Amino acid sequence: MSKVAVIMGSKSDFPTVKAAVTLIKSFGVETEVRVISAHRTPEEAHEYALTARDRGIEVIICAAGKAAHLGGVMAAVTTLPVIGLPVKTDMMGGLDSLLSIVQMPSGIPVATVGVNASENAGLLAMQILGVKYPEIAEKLADYKQKMRDKINADDCALQEELKHL
Amino acid sequence: MSKVAVIMGSKSDFPTVKAAVTLIKSFGVETEVRVISAHRTPEEAHEYALTARDRGIEVIICAAGKAAHLGGVMAAVTTLPVIGLPVKTDMMGGLDSLLSIVQMPSGIPVATVGVNASENAGLLAMQILGVKYPEIAEKLADYKQKMRDKINADDCALQEELKHL
Amino acid sequence: MSKVAVIMGSKSDFPTVKAAVTLIKSFGVETEVRVISAHRTPEEAHEYALTARDRGIEVIICAAGKAAHLGGVMAAVTTLPVIGLPVKTDMMGGLDSLLSIVQMPSGIPVATVGVNASENAGLLAMQILGVKYPEIAEKLADYKQKMRDKINADDCALQEELKHL
Amino acid sequence: MSKVAVIMGSKSDFPTVKAAVTLIKSFGVETEVRVISAHRTPEEAHEYALTARDRGIEVIICAAGKAAHLGGVMAAVTTLPVIGLPVKTDMMGGLDSLLSIVQMPSGIPVATVGVNASENAGLLAMQILGVKYPEIAEKLADYKQKMRDKINADDCALQEELKHL
Amino acid sequence: MSKVAVIMGSKSDFPTVKAAVTLIKSFGVETEVRVISAHRTPEEAHEYALTARDRGIEVIICAAGKAAHLGGVMAAVTTLPVIGLPVKTDMMGGLDSLLSIVQMPSGIPVATVGVNASENAGLLAMQILGVKYPEIAEKLADYKQKMRDKINADDCALQEELKHL
Amino acid sequence: MSKVAVIMGSKSDFPTVKAAVTLIKSFGVETEVRVISAHRTPEEAHEYALTARDRGIEVIICAAGKAAHLGGVMAAVTTLPVIGLPVKTDMMGGLDSLLSIVQMPSGIPVATVGVNASENAGLLAMQILGVKYPEIAEKLADYKQKMRDKINADDCALQEELKHL
Amino acid sequence: MSKVAVIMGSKSDFPTVKAAVTLIKSFGVETEVRVISAHRTPEEAHEYALTARDRGIEVIICAAGKAAHLGGVMAAVTTLPVIGLPVKTDMMGGLDSLLSIVQMPSGIPVATVGVNASENAGLLAMQILGVKYPEIAEKLADYKQKMRDKINADDCALQEELKHL
Amino acid sequence: MSKVAVIMGSKSDFPTVKAAVTLIKSFGVETEVRVISAHRTPEEAHEYALTARDRGIEVIICAAGKAAHLGGVMAAVTTLPVIGLPVKTDMMGGLDSLLSIVQMPSGIPVATVGVNASENAGLLAMQILGVKYPEIAEKLADYKQKMRDKINADDCALQEELKHL
Repeated sequence: MSKVAVIMGSKSDFPTVKAAVTLIKSFGVETEVRVISAHRTPEEAHEYALTARDRGIEVIICAAGKAAHLGGVMAAVTTLPVIGLPVKTDMMGGLDSLLSIVQMPSGIPVATVGVNASENAGLLAMQILGVKYPEIAEKLADYKQKMRDKINADDCALQEELKHL
Repeated sequence: MSKVAVIMGSKSDFPTVKAAVTLIKSFGVETEVRVISAHRTPEEAHEYALTARDRGIEVIICAAGKAAHLGGVMAAVTTLPVIGLPVKTDMMGGLDSLLSIVQMPSGIPVATVGVNASENAGLLAMQILGVKYPEIAEKLADYKQKMRDKINADDCALQEELKHL
Repeated sequence: MSKVAVIMGSKSDFPTVKAAVTLIKSFGVETEVRVISAHRTPEEAHEYALTARDRGIEVIICAAGKAAHLGGVMAAVTTLPVIGLPVKTDMMGGLDSLLSIVQMPSGIPVATVGVNASENAGLLAMQILGVKYPEIAEKLADYKQKMRDKINADDCALQEELKHL
Repeated sequence: MSKVAVIMGSKSDFPTVKAAVTLIKSFGVETEVRVISAHRTPEEAHEYALTARDRGIEVIICAAGKAAHLGGVMAAVTTLPVIGLPVKTDMMGGLDSLLSIVQMPSGIPVATVGVNASENAGLLAMQILGVKYPEIAEKLADYKQKMRDKINADDCALQEELKHL
Repeated sequence: MSKVAVIMGSKSDFPTVKAAVTLIKSFGVETEVRVISAHRTPEEAHEYALTARDRGIEVIICAAGKAAHLGGVMAAVTTLPVIGLPVKTDMMGGLDSLLSIVQMPSGIPVATVGVNASENAGLLAMQILGVKYPEIAEKLADYKQKMRDKINADDCALQEELKHL
Repeated sequence: MSKVAVIMGSKSDFPTVKAAVTLIKSFGVETEVRVISAHRTPEEAHEYALTARDRGIEVIICAAGKAAHLGGVMAAVTTLPVIGLPVKTDMMGGLDSLLSIVQMPSGIPVATVGVNASENAGLLAMQILGVKYPEIAEKLADYKQKMRDKINADDCALQEELKHL
Repeated sequence: MSKVAVIMGSKSDFPTVKAAVTLIKSFGVETEVRVISAHRTPEEAHEYALTARDRGIEVIICAAGKAAHLGGVMAAVTTLPVIGLPVKTDMMGGLDSLLSIVQMPSGIPVATVGVNASENAGLLAMQILGVKYPEIAEKLADYKQKMRDKINADDCALQEELKHL
Repeated sequence: MSKVAVIMGSKSDFPTVKAAVTLIKSFGVETEVRVISAHRTPEEAHEYALTARDRGIEVIICAAGKAAHLGGVMAAVTTLPVIGLPVKTDMMGGLDSLLSIVQMPSGIPVATVGVNASENAGLLAMQILGVKYPEIAEKLADYKQKMRDKINADDCALQEELKHL
């Protein structure tokens, strides 16, 4: 069975990361959630990336902030798709995290989502798995429909509110 | 057989996009290369995204510049993974393209690579397919090894050059 | 009778959008206020833009944040003037929203106002209608005079305050 | 008959501005093209804005670079819609021009298009006039169709080129 | 006797502007503090700048935020030195205000100080007057000495605190 | 007689600085043009600032790029007005130079002009001297008139060109 | 015995600087903590840098914000390594401080750490001393191990928490 | 004998890196110049950092561009001082490289110099070695004196040129 790794560079990133974990679980996919730092535990990071595929991991999500190297360090070792989740900082709203993750040199892509876009990191992992697993693709179609229903419901609710403006 | 769509918002983006196409072909994967504009041919874009999965497309790469909506417009319709390739502009080296692609709202991720990082867009598509197709995963491992060999060869060549410095 | 559409990508944008609605109403112009998302309800967005002119809409205001595609998606379909209202984000104060809206490719302009400049979005709609409807142009002249009076009154009040400094 | 003013802060901006003028003429609308500087000829700028409506001007396009005040100075005086066209500079690709034009205080909107987006400035003027003049709205629909045809033709041409890749 | 004008574009800028006024008064120089908006009261702004020199004003400080045109509008009319004080905004900490003030076109300088650097705006006015009035130059030397004394006293106080760390 | 110092941090800045020197000379004011580096010749910089007033200097213009400290180093020592001229760099068009000059701490203003705005640096020096010397104020009025005439002539020339468009 | 100078431009920077002082003390290295301003006490700054080596200082840490010249002013005089610690500001999260410190001209490096990265400034000083003093190098190895242990402990703790999610 | 490592992420960085190598050699210090990529040869990078101290390396300079992780990857493993040299890119003049290097998380500093400031990287290495080796400190004093002489000579040369202006 498929497994998605969700790695964060610091335990303090967990409140941000949590939405990705929750979303993946809601798709019935197993997660492996870890604190591994590219800079403080470089050997663990290397080892993790090296063995991930063999241990059944199919996508790796890496959340990190500032000079955010975790995704790149993982992508340097594995050939699995690595999703980079830039964590918001005080430096221009996380532009440092974003550029450190997305501007990877040729040959080592990291699939980057928006700053703090934790749910999107989880969804992107599901879309990647959806290429292989039709049941996940179906759940993605449901998810899309629910979003649409939610917007339409919001639109109706707003019409009510506007009457009382 | 798997197929990767490579869509560009303007034919003038083709010189940038070409490296992605070449890389995907070198992996033996079929590409469908198209000029479709989110803004000038919105109906074609919608139709393309709507039917992509059924026509055997498994990943969609969207290259666009400035207020680069192509990836988002596709991702709004399909549940396939969409890779966003920001094209360089005169506005802060393409920061407009990058932010317009990566900062997607919750629910609609676009897997973003660096500005003009065309080869990385192609590689990321291969990594996504590598989850499903072991033979592509193997080719990725070869590719990684060749990059490593290239760096090591460059290192050796530099040592020679340094003797004559 | 003229009608201005005020569309927001998420109901959570309504507090920002409200000033535009209030201003337009104060000019005696009818509004149609809707929640329609370029990414979550792409078909509704397309349909809305396609039929807007025939339903009597003369200007469309689109408020959205981050990779803010709503204005562009509407402008791709309609030939009505589309006003883009970038919503403030944590990314450099909304620079992502601003660039995603204003940097449109050639052929598809979106008339952009400042970040969170909701009142200005409404006023710009009035100025556009003022080209056609002399009574709105007159109200704009009144509005301008009232702003001037307000500044002059503020200036007088400040002189009083300064005496007690 | 309708007339669009196209004002530039410096004659050196004309190569940028020219596309707006050409586009407007191609719609059969008269233009008044002027060099008027907010800073070097402030009285001319004030006078121009003050009398524009009475002289039959219906939209004013203002092109300026750096601390680009021309649009704001005009919009301070007239109630006509003012379109701001930021001219590219060496400062972050024209971010100074863009912010100086779009970030107007409440009460004085300037309808801003992208940096150097001269054709879009002209088109936006046409969309504004299209609210009043049905024949211009029709020409906008033609223009849109031609853009679509152009993209589709580019797409066909690319397919040919790809065969020979 | 010399007089310094301190103009703000909106009465809400007064808390920022106040430090400039206080500093100038502490130098025994008269101030004229006004709310005049480049955009809401353009004629008052023009009139003010036109008559300033004749009414004994020798330096004009202009505080404004966002697309901050006040300093430029004044400098377009008067030949007095105009000091621009950019007011902090939500857009990158006031980068919009700063660029709108400092990036003036050739021929119309505005002497710009840092964002919200109200005291510095006042001091710069004093330095300009100090060229003409030796007694102000002397007070500036005193001011400089007091700053030095303050830093040295802070340094001493810190040594005490460090003992108890 | 009045004298304006024009200091550059590196001789390679002279092509930028030259316009300031030329302008000041055209006003009949003496200049003292020097290469003094805040970082490479800190003692010369300190000595220069310390003795400037006594040697008849009335305004100091400091041109520097990147971490541009020259203006601040001078302003730390003298009570003369110091004009900072940021030199363009490859870092965001000189934003590093601009921020290093304009964002001075409270108590030590540097009157900053735009990036590479050499002529404006010279003009600002003239405006400062114009407070003291009526004949310079008169020349500034002439200069302003010539700029206006130039714009009006450009406007006429453009009308001619447009006939042949 | 070795000594590290920790200089701040303003006593208000001490809360930021404190982590550097604490870290250095925890390595058993003596600190000299001072308030010296490049702009308010330029002579003290010069004197300090000039005599630092002879008084046994081996590394100088300089913390400053905005147009942060302190590190550069020190590095202009001494040949000791100078570490620049940019203090966070309201201007893009301290980008002004960072660029003012890191973008030094050729010949005068300042070893820059991240914005508000006070602990890193202290650690970098220890790494520099570790080149000379083996006992400090050993303590750095311990420090590295403790960081690793901390991350591994965090990872374990997270596994516990996840069970209860 | 001391040795400085100069590592670049790509052989194409050598033209930038060369000035550092040349400078270090001119100080009579041995260099080890290598092409090692954090992403393409992660194991070589790890191995290099792990053994550097034992092989007599005392400072490591790492040059890299875009998402520049090389310095961080080295600093994660070694306790030697690591100097980060950001290589210029098309993204805002290398802001991506700069932020990816300087904004390191707490515990793993990288001593960052300016973008493309290759000579400064070499000089900073010398300053670090100068703490241990008095003969290098002496050479740094000579270097400083030569810079001063060069500026003074430039100043003299300029005076000559100005006579002929």
